[in-house]
Amino acid sequence: MFSTVGMVSRTDRKDALQLAKRITNYLKTKRLRTFLDPELATSIKEPELAMPLPQMRPDMLITIGGDGTILRTCLEIPKPEPPILAIDIGVRGFLTEVKPNGAMKAIDNCLRGECILEKCAKLASVVEGESLPDALNEVLIAPDAPVKLLYTRIKIDKIPAGKCRADAVMVASQVGSTGYSFTAGGPVLDPSMDAFVLTPVCALGVFHPMVFPASSTVTIEVTKPQKTFVVVDGQHRRALKTENPSLTISKSEHQTTFIRFRRNFYRRLEARMLFYRGG
Amino acid sequence: MFSTVGMVSRTDRKDALQLAKRITNYLKTKRLRTFLDPELATSIKEPELAMPLPQMRPDMLITIGGDGTILRTCLEIPKPEPPILAIDIGVRGFLTEVKPNGAMKAIDNCLRGECILEKCAKLASVVEGESLPDALNEVLIAPDAPVKLLYTRIKIDKIPAGKCRADAVMVASQVGSTGYSFTAGGPVLDPSMDAFVLTPVCALGVFHPMVFPASSTVTIEVTKPQKTFVVVDGQHRRALKTENPSLTISKSEHQTTFIRFRRNFYRRLEARMLFYRGG
Amino acid sequence: MFSTVGMVSRTDRKDALQLAKRITNYLKTKRLRTFLDPELATSIKEPELAMPLPQMRPDMLITIGGDGTILRTCLEIPKPEPPILAIDIGVRGFLTEVKPNGAMKAIDNCLRGECILEKCAKLASVVEGESLPDALNEVLIAPDAPVKLLYTRIKIDKIPAGKCRADAVMVASQVGSTGYSFTAGGPVLDPSMDAFVLTPVCALGVFHPMVFPASSTVTIEVTKPQKTFVVVDGQHRRALKTENPSLTISKSEHQTTFIRFRRNFYRRLEARMLFYRGG
Amino acid sequence: MFSTVGMVSRTDRKDALQLAKRITNYLKTKRLRTFLDPELATSIKEPELAMPLPQMRPDMLITIGGDGTILRTCLEIPKPEPPILAIDIGVRGFLTEVKPNGAMKAIDNCLRGECILEKCAKLASVVEGESLPDALNEVLIAPDAPVKLLYTRIKIDKIPAGKCRADAVMVASQVGSTGYSFTAGGPVLDPSMDAFVLTPVCALGVFHPMVFPASSTVTIEVTKPQKTFVVVDGQHRRALKTENPSLTISKSEHQTTFIRFRRNFYRRLEARMLFYRGG
Repeated sequence: MFSTVGMVSRTDRKDALQLAKRITNYLKTKRLRTFLDPELATSIKEPELAMPLPQMRPDMLITIGGDGTILRTCLEIPKPEPPILAIDIGVRGFLTEVKPNGAMKAIDNCLRGECILEKCAKLASVVEGESLPDALNEVLIAPDAPVKLLYTRIKIDKIPAGKCRADAVMVASQVGSTGYSFTAGGPVLDPSMDAFVLTPVCALGVFHPMVFPASSTVTIEVTKPQKTFVVVDGQHRRALKTENPSLTISKSEHQTTFIRFRRNFYRRLEARMLFYRGG
Repeated sequence: MFSTVGMVSRTDRKDALQLAKRITNYLKTKRLRTFLDPELATSIKEPELAMPLPQMRPDMLITIGGDGTILRTCLEIPKPEPPILAIDIGVRGFLTEVKPNGAMKAIDNCLRGECILEKCAKLASVVEGESLPDALNEVLIAPDAPVKLLYTRIKIDKIPAGKCRADAVMVASQVGSTGYSFTAGGPVLDPSMDAFVLTPVCALGVFHPMVFPASSTVTIEVTKPQKTFVVVDGQHRRALKTENPSLTISKSEHQTTFIRFRRNFYRRLEARMLFYRGG
Repeated sequence: MFSTVGMVSRTDRKDALQLAKRITNYLKTKRLRTFLDPELATSIKEPELAMPLPQMRPDMLITIGGDGTILRTCLEIPKPEPPILAIDIGVRGFLTEVKPNGAMKAIDNCLRGECILEKCAKLASVVEGESLPDALNEVLIAPDAPVKLLYTRIKIDKIPAGKCRADAVMVASQVGSTGYSFTAGGPVLDPSMDAFVLTPVCALGVFHPMVFPASSTVTIEVTKPQKTFVVVDGQHRRALKTENPSLTISKSEHQTTFIRFRRNFYRRLEARMLFYRGG
Repeated sequence: MFSTVGMVSRTDRKDALQLAKRITNYLKTKRLRTFLDPELATSIKEPELAMPLPQMRPDMLITIGGDGTILRTCLEIPKPEPPILAIDIGVRGFLTEVKPNGAMKAIDNCLRGECILEKCAKLASVVEGESLPDALNEVLIAPDAPVKLLYTRIKIDKIPAGKCRADAVMVASQVGSTGYSFTAGGPVLDPSMDAFVLTPVCALGVFHPMVFPASSTVTIEVTKPQKTFVVVDGQHRRALKTENPSLTISKSEHQTTFIRFRRNFYRRLEARMLFYRGG
């Protein structure tokens, strides 16, 4: 099923590096071709396996870290994305699937095809005539100054759907509905929903989050001139040059695919809630 | 297209009764058979047209009033429901379509078939082994005492989806997402969404509204024994006899059909928001 | 310091009754005169110590139970209230001070005067010309029907301070700011605040909780006629007879006094938050 | 009562400049010594009246603009501040008192002493060993990256009062309770409250705003190292150099004094709510 494997890891934690080294050795014994993110390759002294993410095209990708590691990786890897086996070493593993001590068994299961591929819709967005990298979680637009109001007009498939004044406005995917959108007061979208949610941050007035089908195109038009920026997945930031930008978001043709061993959205949600409430 | 017409109206307002009388006369000139809700028939002195709602099976139904009038009518009328032409005499017409002065023209348009039939999903619910009337807006379960917490376990298609402690818990339809669910903090569901939303009222902890496909079955299990009641569309109230009731909600096989003259969900939403924010 | 002691306890739990019996015996050895709530007296077979709460005037009052037990006791006991030593046998002890196994030591400390008396402001309220029992937590007014909006006008010292449409409106004391008011979205008032908070439940529009000095008089006028009721501390419910009642709330001349062994509001708050978030 | 008058105005609006010119001429006829903010002096061709704000010490200060103009002015003017007559030319005048057409009459009334001096508490704050300018509205600390969580520990008078994880955390004054703190979900503090409110922006978990007496000192300690910045009144921004900064906020010895012609907090609040809800 898989003959080449890519690997990305946090390099600031010893346990992550040790695990990456062990997995690299294990993959060698399995005679699988392995690519390592260059920084990781250097850190675990396997320079000959280095391959920059934007050129990496493995059959399967292992990430060692938390959700941030996954989000950064998905922003850089060429499309279509390989399936991801996400190993959790941190506290925040909502997207992750296995703990370090289950890593080898998980890899074996993958190689035998004993896994579920969970496909997650991503968000394609265009602003100022240019495409942004696809978002797994959310695309957010905000003023480039603190304590400043963003005045926007929202359109769904070009039809006006309301005005929104807020600190920031985001569109989140189903997966992203449990991320920053949730913190800002957005609803949880069931994993079988093919839908997105538009969630304002600290909206004035009575603007609530809006859920619309993933087949829609949503446009966020800034109606009061000001400096703004866009952030994809909390990682990729882009300052906008125009003063009345219009951000258009729709379903990407690409997806992120996670390797799972059982269907367990609500179990993972519960774990995330535990983190949210400080457990 | 329509050969029999039913009519329901608020009878506590003179303007409503005058309009009902005018429409009745107009329908006579069109040689349409007309049924009136008995209270209305008495009020406008047309006793021979009286027909109780639970027996009324017209091709089209005219309501004169606000959303409350529509909700009450839909709870009582036999299924499948006739299309509804909703005339607004009040301040709260989110579901209504025409103002009194546009009523005759609207009826003419209907008779010529120049209208859009907007079909709205309804909620079927079962509790203590009995079916409740279908809900157009929402089904709510709450403790039968003020300032009392409801402890529940939520299941989506029998899979545990979380625990919720709140003043009350409701499931709202797409239409209902702009009603009481909204007031309780729920998201707006776009009219093209085939989805429902579960919204708690004053939840403890970090439980947010959850959106799930209309093809799902959601179960709200009361986990701490107490007296509770269920309310359908804010109108039909039923005290529960068991102490750990389980309320099951799914999409009804029936729909409510509104006669519209243009597609305008977000315009009506804007009007509703105006009411919400005190406009 | 104390020569007579009253005691109230939950009688539906064996551990509570056993503790009550032990304490009764202990007080006998200390030669303190003891009064028991009649239901408790019967339950632990000490009928000769029975004394109805409304006649009980001890130097000190011991409650065994949770916050509900304390609230019910404070509603009934004659004013001025004796200091309360609150023993926690349940999960919800925000107001309680000691665990059962610390009870005897706590009593000893009280008798030696080694304790802090924490005085808590209470709310006096008048509606339809009659005074309600003082509230330790909050006074709430709500429509006597579910899913029904309460239209009110708020006045602070007779000056209009805004209109509020909501499911219900309450005024909470400093102590009550961590109770139902909190659940409805209200702020926490620091224990050194001599202030109250007016908190709506599911308000329409942009009405936020309002904090005003405890020296103010707040009036909640119902502006749209309907059946309503008032609830004091979630326990004492009173249906209102008039259709446009006006509820007036101010600081009571009486206080509730808790016996504490250290100042620890924020520690108790943390414990309450743990309960709120599902810990 | 007043013998020298300072004036600050928005210079990007013609109506503001025309009014400033008229007032300047009027003050000349009254033989009052007038100081103009240098940019304003240039704009209305009165260079000889120019005086930089940080050196301006008039008996009374006129601002022409909205709340932003007032906030910026108060940050720069030497302490103690002169009383401010705030003329509103914009849409957002919560702090402002008079409309342009009432300006001359208002000035006359001031000169005759027919006015009320409304004193507003300000916030003094210290971070990294340095004092920030006093805040009229609020002091906010936030991570210097979007979609990033701030981990903090809150102390009131050095006593731990809870942990808070949020997008940002602010302390707002009574006046500021109707500003950004409100947007973030904070309560309204009655003008007679000598209190502050700590309000998180998009907090995780169940952290609610906390109200504490203005005599308290509140400390916000960043517990997870990261780049942060502080903003005073949405205007004065300061990047922090240390990774675990501790921000200390208490009541300033200085106040901002507004010239009012009647006591009308709740009327101004109502106007602000109208803006908030989109009126």
